[in-house]
Amino acid sequence: MVRNICREKKGEDGVAKVVIIGAGAMGSALTVPLAKNGNEVILWGTELDEGIITALRDGKPHPKHKHPLPSCIKTYYAHQLQEAMEHAEIVIMAITSDALGMIFKRVISYLHEGMIVISVSKGLEYGASGDTIILPHMLEELLPNLLKDKIPMIGVGGPCKAIEVMWESSTSVTYACKNIEFAQKVKNLIMTDRYNVEITEDMVGTEICAAMKNAYAVGLGLAEGFKSRAGFLHNNTKSALFTFAVAELAILVKALGGSLASVVGLPGVGDLEVTGEAGRNRTLGEIIGAGMKAKDAIKKMEEEDITVEGYSAIRYGYELQKQLVLKGKLSLTELPLLQGLYRILYEDAPAYETVMELVQQCTGKYSWDI
Amino acid sequence: MVRNICREKKGEDGVAKVVIIGAGAMGSALTVPLAKNGNEVILWGTELDEGIITALRDGKPHPKHKHPLPSCIKTYYAHQLQEAMEHAEIVIMAITSDALGMIFKRVISYLHEGMIVISVSKGLEYGASGDTIILPHMLEELLPNLLKDKIPMIGVGGPCKAIEVMWESSTSVTYACKNIEFAQKVKNLIMTDRYNVEITEDMVGTEICAAMKNAYAVGLGLAEGFKSRAGFLHNNTKSALFTFAVAELAILVKALGGSLASVVGLPGVGDLEVTGEAGRNRTLGEIIGAGMKAKDAIKKMEEEDITVEGYSAIRYGYELQKQLVLKGKLSLTELPLLQGLYRILYEDAPAYETVMELVQQCTGKYSWDI
Repeated sequence: MVRNICREKKGEDGVAKVVIIGAGAMGSALTVPLAKNGNEVILWGTELDEGIITALRDGKPHPKHKHPLPSCIKTYYAHQLQEAMEHAEIVIMAITSDALGMIFKRVISYLHEGMIVISVSKGLEYGASGDTIILPHMLEELLPNLLKDKIPMIGVGGPCKAIEVMWESSTSVTYACKNIEFAQKVKNLIMTDRYNVEITEDMVGTEICAAMKNAYAVGLGLAEGFKSRAGFLHNNTKSALFTFAVAELAILVKALGGSLASVVGLPGVGDLEVTGEAGRNRTLGEIIGAGMKAKDAIKKMEEEDITVEGYSAIRYGYELQKQLVLKGKLSLTELPLLQGLYRILYEDAPAYETVMELVQQCTGKYSWDI
Repeated sequence: MVRNICREKKGEDGVAKVVIIGAGAMGSALTVPLAKNGNEVILWGTELDEGIITALRDGKPHPKHKHPLPSCIKTYYAHQLQEAMEHAEIVIMAITSDALGMIFKRVISYLHEGMIVISVSKGLEYGASGDTIILPHMLEELLPNLLKDKIPMIGVGGPCKAIEVMWESSTSVTYACKNIEFAQKVKNLIMTDRYNVEITEDMVGTEICAAMKNAYAVGLGLAEGFKSRAGFLHNNTKSALFTFAVAELAILVKALGGSLASVVGLPGVGDLEVTGEAGRNRTLGEIIGAGMKAKDAIKKMEEEDITVEGYSAIRYGYELQKQLVLKGKLSLTELPLLQGLYRILYEDAPAYETVMELVQQCTGKYSWDI
């Protein structure tokens, strides 16, 4: 069961050998636009993806999407990384943020000048100095000296549910690279009539939005959960929180030297919108908003083996904020919503009362100076 | 069946006699924060509200909300306008945008210097010159010469479902007045721990967002409807359209001399979010997105006596755009999404194909210069 959407353009200009590292939802979904454009597409699975690779090799649909992948892609098991990486031109890291560094270390041995690395993971990590940093910066830190500044890193933001890329719902995403030529090159390889790509030099803004929108989406979920608790909708509350979240993304991005255009564009406003509609981050908030204690909600999701990126993003964001305060780039009172979410998620502050107070506190608080 | 939430503060400082013109959803909902703060609250119904006033006088819940109003408010029938307006200090116009001018003309005879008029209607209208103008400007045009510039006009924006104001879900709204002192005065009268108010001098930005978010919400509805048509979700598409809508609100507001802070704040981003969650504007889009011809969908909603403000907002916005082009403040290619919505709603362009093209066209198109 495969999809015959591949265009034959092997060896022609405008196509490349693209190796996708990670056969989960997003990695697998990206095979669709890549194959449609005639690229040579390799999908490599980690040890955790063995079942996925076996299913695909047996001609079955992808076990996560329940959807067939393009007929022309090649799949490789974890132990076949060397074969998978042979002649690779583009490497797409499609690994959950917590395992990204570990897997990237294995990939590094096959990297050489002229290749481009794309990270589609959304999150933050600790850098070598102990500071919280964006994922492409962590990947750069991991590169051996010989390769530093030789491998362009591209970050991806914008509203993009993987399954919808697979289905080919019209999607718009942002590819960010300090040197925009490389973003343009990748855009040319991957963009289709349904998978639309804009490019930007603002890596920091794109990545901060990508990571932190998960944190704020937990907050949007809280307002959804209030319906069960209070017996009536809190859409006004959700929209107020949405607006405050955008304002705090702007403050964070500005303090880190990124561009506000990313915040009000696809990486910020757009991705927050789609993340607030559905997904794990929203669900975690919803459960807590409905009345469950944060501790118990986290435990429940851990027991079900569900990783909620927004939960750790709240902690990373909270630490990033403290870091920025120490550096004099932010004052401690500038991100009340993030602090409130931290209190609810990590210190068991009562969700309903805390959010009511936050809405009071945040109304009229933010000044954009634009 | 009434609510005993009224505070006794009659005659004290910080309270006023507030007359609400229109006993529909929003007018009635605003009795809650006003009564809670101890104001003297008058609710006057138009000829269309006779049934509502009768129900309230009989001690029944409000027929629209199915919810009791505060026990201390006084209600008046349409023919009792003079009594209702006696000693009024604040007048809140809570009339649908299409009837606002007509009803305001009746109110004018009771206005005098020292009073403040608030418009909670969201929409656009034709001014005396034939140009499309914001509603508070239309009200100003209607004032007799003797009162011009003597009655401060306040516009209201932000995410605010009326029923949730009634329920007291936490809500944040924006009160806009050229002279911010008057906005502050009204804020002091109406703000509670649940109905939060920020103030701004940016009347134009607030009102353009309030009106045009309805237009763009029809577009968000289209993406919701695509699920029925195509068999799978289009949340990525909806979020992309959401982002493009915010960008076009910014272009419109900037061209009219308003502030971008309103666009990225509660009146723009916040109100678009809540309007895209549910409501008539979204529903109209949803029906068309699911496959019904725009003409038929409009006819259906007209037959059911449902006014969809987004439908006329698309036309007003389209005309406003042409006006701004003539004045050299905009080029014809700057608002592709608005033009696309006009083609779908008014020229029966195919919704799905048009939106797919729009997403391509709009990706990477907008530059914020912030």
